Amino acid sequence: MQRVKTAIVGASGYTGSELLRLLLQHPHVELTAVTSRAEAGKSIESVFPRFRKLSGATLAFMEPDPDQIAATGAQAAFLALPHGVAAEIATALIARGIKVIDLSADFRIHDPAVYQEFYAHPHPAPELLASAVYGLPEVHTDAIRAASLIASPGCYPTSILLPLIPLLRKNLLDPHSIIANSMSGVSGAGKKPDAAFLFCECNESLRAYGIPKHRHLAEIEQELSLAAGEPLCITFIPHLVPVNTGIHSAITATLRPGTTMTEITNALENAYADSAFVRLLGPGVCADTKNVTRTNFIDIGWHIDSRTNRLIITSAEDNVVKGAGGQAVQSFNLIFGLPENAGLQTV
Amino acid sequence: MQRVKTAIVGASGYTGSELLRLLLQHPHVELTAVTSRAEAGKSIESVFPRFRKLSGATLAFMEPDPDQIAATGAQAAFLALPHGVAAEIATALIARGIKVIDLSADFRIHDPAVYQEFYAHPHPAPELLASAVYGLPEVHTDAIRAASLIASPGCYPTSILLPLIPLLRKNLLDPHSIIANSMSGVSGAGKKPDAAFLFCECNESLRAYGIPKHRHLAEIEQELSLAAGEPLCITFIPHLVPVNTGIHSAITATLRPGTTMTEITNALENAYADSAFVRLLGPGVCADTKNVTRTNFIDIGWHIDSRTNRLIITSAEDNVVKGAGGQAVQSFNLIFGLPENAGLQTV
Amino acid sequence: MQRVKTAIVGASGYTGSELLRLLLQHPHVELTAVTSRAEAGKSIESVFPRFRKLSGATLAFMEPDPDQIAATGAQAAFLALPHGVAAEIATALIARGIKVIDLSADFRIHDPAVYQEFYAHPHPAPELLASAVYGLPEVHTDAIRAASLIASPGCYPTSILLPLIPLLRKNLLDPHSIIANSMSGVSGAGKKPDAAFLFCECNESLRAYGIPKHRHLAEIEQELSLAAGEPLCITFIPHLVPVNTGIHSAITATLRPGTTMTEITNALENAYADSAFVRLLGPGVCADTKNVTRTNFIDIGWHIDSRTNRLIITSAEDNVVKGAGGQAVQSFNLIFGLPENAGLQTV
Amino acid sequence: MQRVKTAIVGASGYTGSELLRLLLQHPHVELTAVTSRAEAGKSIESVFPRFRKLSGATLAFMEPDPDQIAATGAQAAFLALPHGVAAEIATALIARGIKVIDLSADFRIHDPAVYQEFYAHPHPAPELLASAVYGLPEVHTDAIRAASLIASPGCYPTSILLPLIPLLRKNLLDPHSIIANSMSGVSGAGKKPDAAFLFCECNESLRAYGIPKHRHLAEIEQELSLAAGEPLCITFIPHLVPVNTGIHSAITATLRPGTTMTEITNALENAYADSAFVRLLGPGVCADTKNVTRTNFIDIGWHIDSRTNRLIITSAEDNVVKGAGGQAVQSFNLIFGLPENAGLQTV
Repeated sequence: MQRVKTAIVGASGYTGSELLRLLLQHPHVELTAVTSRAEAGKSIESVFPRFRKLSGATLAFMEPDPDQIAATGAQAAFLALPHGVAAEIATALIARGIKVIDLSADFRIHDPAVYQEFYAHPHPAPELLASAVYGLPEVHTDAIRAASLIASPGCYPTSILLPLIPLLRKNLLDPHSIIANSMSGVSGAGKKPDAAFLFCECNESLRAYGIPKHRHLAEIEQELSLAAGEPLCITFIPHLVPVNTGIHSAITATLRPGTTMTEITNALENAYADSAFVRLLGPGVCADTKNVTRTNFIDIGWHIDSRTNRLIITSAEDNVVKGAGGQAVQSFNLIFGLPENAGLQTV
Repeated sequence: MQRVKTAIVGASGYTGSELLRLLLQHPHVELTAVTSRAEAGKSIESVFPRFRKLSGATLAFMEPDPDQIAATGAQAAFLALPHGVAAEIATALIARGIKVIDLSADFRIHDPAVYQEFYAHPHPAPELLASAVYGLPEVHTDAIRAASLIASPGCYPTSILLPLIPLLRKNLLDPHSIIANSMSGVSGAGKKPDAAFLFCECNESLRAYGIPKHRHLAEIEQELSLAAGEPLCITFIPHLVPVNTGIHSAITATLRPGTTMTEITNALENAYADSAFVRLLGPGVCADTKNVTRTNFIDIGWHIDSRTNRLIITSAEDNVVKGAGGQAVQSFNLIFGLPENAGLQTV
Repeated sequence: MQRVKTAIVGASGYTGSELLRLLLQHPHVELTAVTSRAEAGKSIESVFPRFRKLSGATLAFMEPDPDQIAATGAQAAFLALPHGVAAEIATALIARGIKVIDLSADFRIHDPAVYQEFYAHPHPAPELLASAVYGLPEVHTDAIRAASLIASPGCYPTSILLPLIPLLRKNLLDPHSIIANSMSGVSGAGKKPDAAFLFCECNESLRAYGIPKHRHLAEIEQELSLAAGEPLCITFIPHLVPVNTGIHSAITATLRPGTTMTEITNALENAYADSAFVRLLGPGVCADTKNVTRTNFIDIGWHIDSRTNRLIITSAEDNVVKGAGGQAVQSFNLIFGLPENAGLQTV
Repeated sequence: MQRVKTAIVGASGYTGSELLRLLLQHPHVELTAVTSRAEAGKSIESVFPRFRKLSGATLAFMEPDPDQIAATGAQAAFLALPHGVAAEIATALIARGIKVIDLSADFRIHDPAVYQEFYAHPHPAPELLASAVYGLPEVHTDAIRAASLIASPGCYPTSILLPLIPLLRKNLLDPHSIIANSMSGVSGAGKKPDAAFLFCECNESLRAYGIPKHRHLAEIEQELSLAAGEPLCITFIPHLVPVNTGIHSAITATLRPGTTMTEITNALENAYADSAFVRLLGPGVCADTKNVTRTNFIDIGWHIDSRTNRLIITSAEDNVVKGAGGQAVQSFNLIFGLPENAGLQTV
C-alpha cells in the first residue's frame, strides 16, 4: 500500500512529539515535512533523542511555510499549534489541497460567538467553520471520512463526551445535573518554560484550576447538547496532578426516574461493542489511567449511587494519545480509508 | 509547665509515625509508652531512623497491654489501630482513667446501626458511644475540652466538613445536591504490604475507588445532617493519586436561590476568622496541597459557577496531619488546657 | 510466515507482564501457554486490564506443568521465575524439546561454585551449565543462534557490560579500576507485596542497597573478565530511585596510559555501528533513561576526565525491556531466525 | 532573649524560601527585610501561600538596596543570589556593619584563579576572600564564630566533605582514588523557568550532567586537599533524579594498606559523636534521603568492599536544608552565640 505523504506543523511540543512518535511508526505514512520555528534546521532525532535509529528520524525541521510544506507533496497535515495561530495556516494548507487535522481549538466550536466568548478573540477564520468536522471518530465517523478539515477534540472533552453521549441520546440522564471532575497529567500544560509547571511545583501537589469556566466547556457543552437534543450547561472541575500523562474523569449525573443499571449498560454496549478503542469495563469497575497510558484506548466504568439516584462514571485515557495525537491519527485513518487502528495498536 | 505523660498505641503505621513525629517534638508532652506488636522491644529510632537524635527516640516499643501502659503513668493515649480493635483497648484504658484520643472509626458514628451498616460488624463497645465526642476541634470545641474519649475524624471527612458546615448552618446550600470529589495521597492506604500500593502500581496511576459507598460517608453525612438540621445524603468519590500525603477535595452544591458570593464568604469568615488552622484563601482562589503538607492547616477556596448556580469549594489538607495525627493532637491540646497550636506550629 | 508457538512460565510479575506485552504484539509469535500458580484459570486480560482488546489476551493462565505446556505445542518457553525455581522447569522443558529462554540467574554463571557463593545454595542443575549461553545478543550472537538454553542477562549487568566489553577487549582501560554506580526503577524489586517497596517508602527516597556484594557482580565479573582476558573484580553500587522503570549506570575506569578519546570512540563505534539496539550518543553526551523507557534501546555516552585520567561512561536502558523481557525476545529472534528487532521496534 | 534582626536578600527562589521557612520560625530571629526584585511590594504570604498565618509572613518584599536593608536595623543578612551578583551586595552590607552569610559560590574558593577557572569570570571582590570563612560548621567551628562573612557550602560538597574529611585527616584513604557519585532532587536546579526542569522532563527520568568538571569540584577539592595535607583531584558525577529535595552521595576510595573497619568507624565517631546534625548510621548501613528531608541532619553509612579494598560511603542530606538554608542558619547560630540547633530542631 502506498504511504500517505504527511506533514506535522508545530512538532516540538508534547502533542507534536506524540504525533511524531505515532507517525514515524505508522505503516501507511511517510513523513515529508515537520515544522518548528524554534528547531528549524535540526533533525528530529537531535531534538528528540528518543527517536534515534527510527526510520525517518533524520528528517530536518523546517519553517512552517505553506508553500514549502505543499512542495514536499504532503497530502495531509496535522497542526499542533496554539489556537488563533492554527486557523491561519489551516486556511493556507486547505487552499493547497491538503487535508488538515487541526489539534487546536480553532475549529471545534461551530458558533463563532461562543468561540469568542471562551477564547477572548474573534474567530480567525469563520468561513471554514461550516466545513470543519469535530473529530470524535466514535461519534462523527461518517462526517470524518468525508472531511477536509478535522477539529480534533480536546483532551478533557474526549474523556467526558464518550461516556455521556450514548446515555444522553437515550435520555437516561437529567442533562442539567452533570458534573465532571477531571484530573490531568502535567503534559497537558505543554512544554513551554513556565515556573508553575516545574517539577518541584507539581510533584507532591494536587490542585484544581481553571474553574468555573475552563475553555473546554465550550466544546463539551456543544457536543452534549447535540446528544441531549437541548442546550445544557455542566460544571467542570479540572485538576493538575503529578503524572506525566493520563486523564481521569469522574462524572456524576442524576438518573431519569426509573432508569436501571441494565439500561445504562445496554446504552454503552450498543454504542461501543465494536469500537476499536473504547473499552467498557462494565458496571462496578473503576478506570485507572495506568492501563491506558501510551495507548489510544479509553476505559470506562460505571456505578449507580442508589442512595442519591446518581450515576457515577469513571473514564481513563492518555491525554496525549486518545486525548490528542492518537485520536487525530484515528481521524486521519478514516479520511484516507485506512484501518481505523493503523499505527495505533501498541500497548 | 509540666508535661502530659502520653502513650501511642499502634505506633508503627503511617498515622502512628506521624503521631510520633508530633509528640516527640511537642513541648508539653512526655511520651511514656509506644506500642506495636510487630516492633515490641525495638527502639523508636531503630524502627524510624528519621527520628534518630531526637530526645525520647530511644524509648522502646512495648506490647499494647493496658496495665503496662497505665503503669507508665500515661494520662492520655492516642490509638492508631484498625477499627474494631481500637474499641476494646479504648474501653480498658478509659477504665484506668486515661483520656483516649482514638483515630480509628470506632467512636465516630453515634448510631451503632449505621456503624454496622458501614463497617459490616456490630459495634464493639456501644456503651461508650454516648460519651464519645467527634473530634473536629473547629466545630465541637467545648465538647472536646470536656471529653474523656475523642473520636478523631477521618481524613476525607475533615476536608469536606470544615468548608460545608458553616454554609449548611446558614442554609445557603441545597443539602441534597452535595457532591464531593476527593484525591488522596497513598499514605492513606496505610503501611501494610499490599501489592496494590507498591510504588509501580501507584506511580503514573490515577484511579477512583470505594464508590459509591465509602465508609467515610457515615461520619460525613452524620455531621453534615447536624449542620443542615435535616438528614442528607451526598455523593462521594475518593481517588488515589501518586503523592505521599495530601488530600484535595472539590465539592459542589447548588446554591439556595438568591444566595450571593458575599453571603458565602461571610459565613466562612465568621466561622473561621480566628481559627488557628483553617486558612480561607478567599473567593476565586484554588487550594493546593503543596501549601499544607506536613502542617495542620487546611486551606479553603471557593468559586460560584453562575452558569449552573453551583458553589465550587476546593480544600487541601495533609491527610496524616490535619486529617489524622495533627488534628488528634489539636483535640489533645484542648483537653489538657494547652494552647490549641502547641506542637503544631511548624511549616 | 508461520508463528512460533511460545509459552511464558511465570507471567504474573513485572518481567512476566513485560514479556506478555511484547509477545502478544510480536508478529511472529503465537502465545499458546502462560502460567501462574496464583492466577491459574483467569484470563490474561482480567489479570492485566492493560491488555484488554489485544488479540490473544483472552488466553487463560495455567499451572506451570511441563507436560501441559508441551501439549500446547510450544516450541519456545520464556521463564520469568525466581532463581532456584527456574532450573527445575528448564530441565523439564528442554527434555521435551522446547527451547528455553530463562530470565532468572540460574544459568548465567558458568562456574557452579561462583553460583553457590553468590546465591547461597548449590546449583540446581549443573549438568545444563555447559550448554547454556549468556544471552547478550550483541556479544554472543552466534552462540545464541545455536542455543537451546539461553541465560538472559540481569538488568544491571546489561547496562554495565555493553559499554565496557569493547573497551576491555581493546585493552584501553585498567581492568582493576572499574567502579559502577547504577540507579534502578522500583519495578526491579518485583511485584511481591513488601512494605519496603510501597509507594510512600520509595517516593521521595534515594538509597543505595546490596553493597558491597550484590548478586549481579557474579555475571558482571565473569563477562568482563572474558573481555579483559584476565580475572577482575569491580565495585558495584546499586541504588533504588523513584521511577517505575529505567536503569542508569555511571561507570568510571582509569585509562591505560596514552589512551585517547578517539580510541575510545572508535572501539565503541566498531562494536556497535550496525547494532539494532545500542545507540552511541557520542563523546560528551549524557544518557537519560527517559529516552529509552519502554524500548529495547540502550543509550551510551562517554567523557574523559582528563584531570584524573579516568573514563566516565553513562548508559541508560529500560530494566524490564533491554534489561529483561526485550533482550530475551531479542535472543528468541536470533534462535528462530527472525529479524533481530521483530516485535521490538516501538518507541 | 533578644531576637537578631535579620535580612534575606534574594528570597524568592528555593533556597530563599527555605531560609524564609527556617527564619520565620526561628525563636531568636526577627525578619526585618526580605528582598526580591521580581516580588517587590508583595507580602511573603502572598508569594508563598504555604506561610500564611505564620507570624511575620505579612512582611513585604523590598528591592535589594543595601541602605534600605541597613535601615531596617538588620544585624545579619543571608544572601541567596546567583554567583557574581552576591559579591557586590555582600561588600555593601559588610561595609554597613552587617554580618553576611552568603549562600552563593562567590566566597567559597580561597584562590581567585581557581574561582575564575570554574566560574568563567574574574572574582568580583577578591579583597574580601581573606576574611571569608567556608561555612561548614562541623569543620570550621571556631572560625565561623568569629567571622563577618560566611561562604556557606554547596549542596553536593556538604554531602561529600563531611564523611571524607575525618578519614583524610587520619590518612586512612588514598587521596587520589576518590570518586563521588551524587544524586540530587530537582530543587537543586532552582526555580527559574527552564524547559529542562519541567515536571515531564524530570519525572521518570534519570540522568547525569555536568561531567567531568562540575563547578562544585573547586570547593570540594579545596577542602579535601586541606584535610589530606596535599593537593588532590577527585572524579565527581552528579545526577538529576525525580525527587523534590534530597542529595545522596555514594563515595568510593581505596583504603590505605592495612586500614581496618575499626579505624574507619573510630575516625568518624571521634569527629561526630557530639555533633548536633551528623548522624552516623554505622558500618554496613545505607543512608536514605527520606530520613533527612526537611531536616538539617546528614546521615552517613559505610561499607568496606574487601574484594577491591575500597571503602564505600553513602551519605544523605536535604539539599535545601543541610545543603543550603539549614547549614547557613547553623553558621548564623554560631556567629550570634545561639544554640547550634536553634530553629533547626524539627523533623
